[in-house]
Amino acid sequence: MRRVALGIEYDGTGFVGWQSQANGRAVQDILGAAVAQVAAEPVVLTAAGRTDAGVHAEAQVVHFDTSARRTDRQWVLGINSQLPDDVAVTWARSVDCDFDARRSAVSRTYRYQLLRCQTRSPLWRQRSMWVRTPLDLGTMSAAAVYLLGEQDFSALRAAGCQSRSAQRCVTAIRMAGRAPFVHIDVTANAFLYHMVRNMVGLLVRVGSGAADAAWVAAVLASGDRSQGAPTAPAQGLTLRAVTYPEHFGVPAHGRIARDE
Amino acid sequence: MRRVALGIEYDGTGFVGWQSQANGRAVQDILGAAVAQVAAEPVVLTAAGRTDAGVHAEAQVVHFDTSARRTDRQWVLGINSQLPDDVAVTWARSVDCDFDARRSAVSRTYRYQLLRCQTRSPLWRQRSMWVRTPLDLGTMSAAAVYLLGEQDFSALRAAGCQSRSAQRCVTAIRMAGRAPFVHIDVTANAFLYHMVRNMVGLLVRVGSGAADAAWVAAVLASGDRSQGAPTAPAQGLTLRAVTYPEHFGVPAHGRIARDE
Repeated sequence: MRRVALGIEYDGTGFVGWQSQANGRAVQDILGAAVAQVAAEPVVLTAAGRTDAGVHAEAQVVHFDTSARRTDRQWVLGINSQLPDDVAVTWARSVDCDFDARRSAVSRTYRYQLLRCQTRSPLWRQRSMWVRTPLDLGTMSAAAVYLLGEQDFSALRAAGCQSRSAQRCVTAIRMAGRAPFVHIDVTANAFLYHMVRNMVGLLVRVGSGAADAAWVAAVLASGDRSQGAPTAPAQGLTLRAVTYPEHFGVPAHGRIARDE
Repeated sequence: MRRVALGIEYDGTGFVGWQSQANGRAVQDILGAAVAQVAAEPVVLTAAGRTDAGVHAEAQVVHFDTSARRTDRQWVLGINSQLPDDVAVTWARSVDCDFDARRSAVSRTYRYQLLRCQTRSPLWRQRSMWVRTPLDLGTMSAAAVYLLGEQDFSALRAAGCQSRSAQRCVTAIRMAGRAPFVHIDVTANAFLYHMVRNMVGLLVRVGSGAADAAWVAAVLASGDRSQGAPTAPAQGLTLRAVTYPEHFGVPAHGRIARDE
């Protein structure tokens, strides 16, 4: 058996998310069928991040085992020819059998895109959260500091989160983006279910002046999800990078982030 | 009667274009029905640019006459509440009755977005043209110079173009954008049918090395559409700004361009 890693980009709009579900179009199913076709045998796909319905990916990473012999280029071209236009393979690599797209990942980076304007935007409706109220980015940055580091993020996990521990380590939160866009880039070793979207909910509340930066610390300390703000909508979120120990030789970024 | 101007943003993906057609979803029809609802009377809409199927607009400008009295804010909120999520009003202004969204326009600016990468992009498939071959932007800029100025653009007009004259004045062509994107911004007093997309077709051909910059001058001089390159696809094109004499007090840009 050989292990192959793939970089995957998808527009989450038409998907129920990464993971197979009883009903609906899951990236895992559609990609799995395309890979199986090229491999000429069934495959099991493991992904770095199990993105939700409506969440996008520039740089999802998956792996599978196969007895098929194909060059990296053959995997890319073959699989893409079998995929619908809202999902594509951006690269393929033969990897060591101890590489695991999920367990080997050292960090994940998600970008959340806010669009600040007075009227809703048809062009960005599937790629951003529309914010009408003025936002104080300085206060948001101050509040973001409380979300950094190794902490218990129970207050930011959604009901239905299956992780045993709520301990996660957030290594970076960066706020940038040219007006009218604000990009919130969050990097952590791993994320709980809805964790980024709940973080963004908190930060937007602070930015709009409805709470102060210290409130974020209080919510976090409470360990209680009901203390927080509404979860930010899925369509603003994109999985932007996954990093692995260097010796695996796996690219971290999708085509966009890599070149920025 | 009062005359009202509106700024319109739309995602062209789900439309047959601006103009009403026997079949299909036209922006003109859908917007017209929404305005009529708010005005409580039928209206006729005139637009600055008659965009094609799949072409987007950040800053389309339209006008209509009505006997209804509404504030600018009432027009915006009222019309938006009647529109589907792929089209929206970004501003409204009461204007002098000699303002005409089409005839008063001094210039239009379109942006064409290229995405240079090895594999097709699900996230940008509806907003860019995918270019696999390397592009020499220097040669493209040199070629673009031949497209500037007051000229006969017969070689760049599509069959079916209804303009009497093919004389147009291109005042600016700017190439920019962070990799992997290339933005080609073209400003002219007005455009012929498919003129921007045919310009982009020429420039991409030159950029890929299949022709030299002087070939663009030869195509233009021929006055013959069959001498050119394939028309670049609609989804890469966005109407980005329309300018009017200042005394009309009409905003030139949509929300994106204005803030860049």
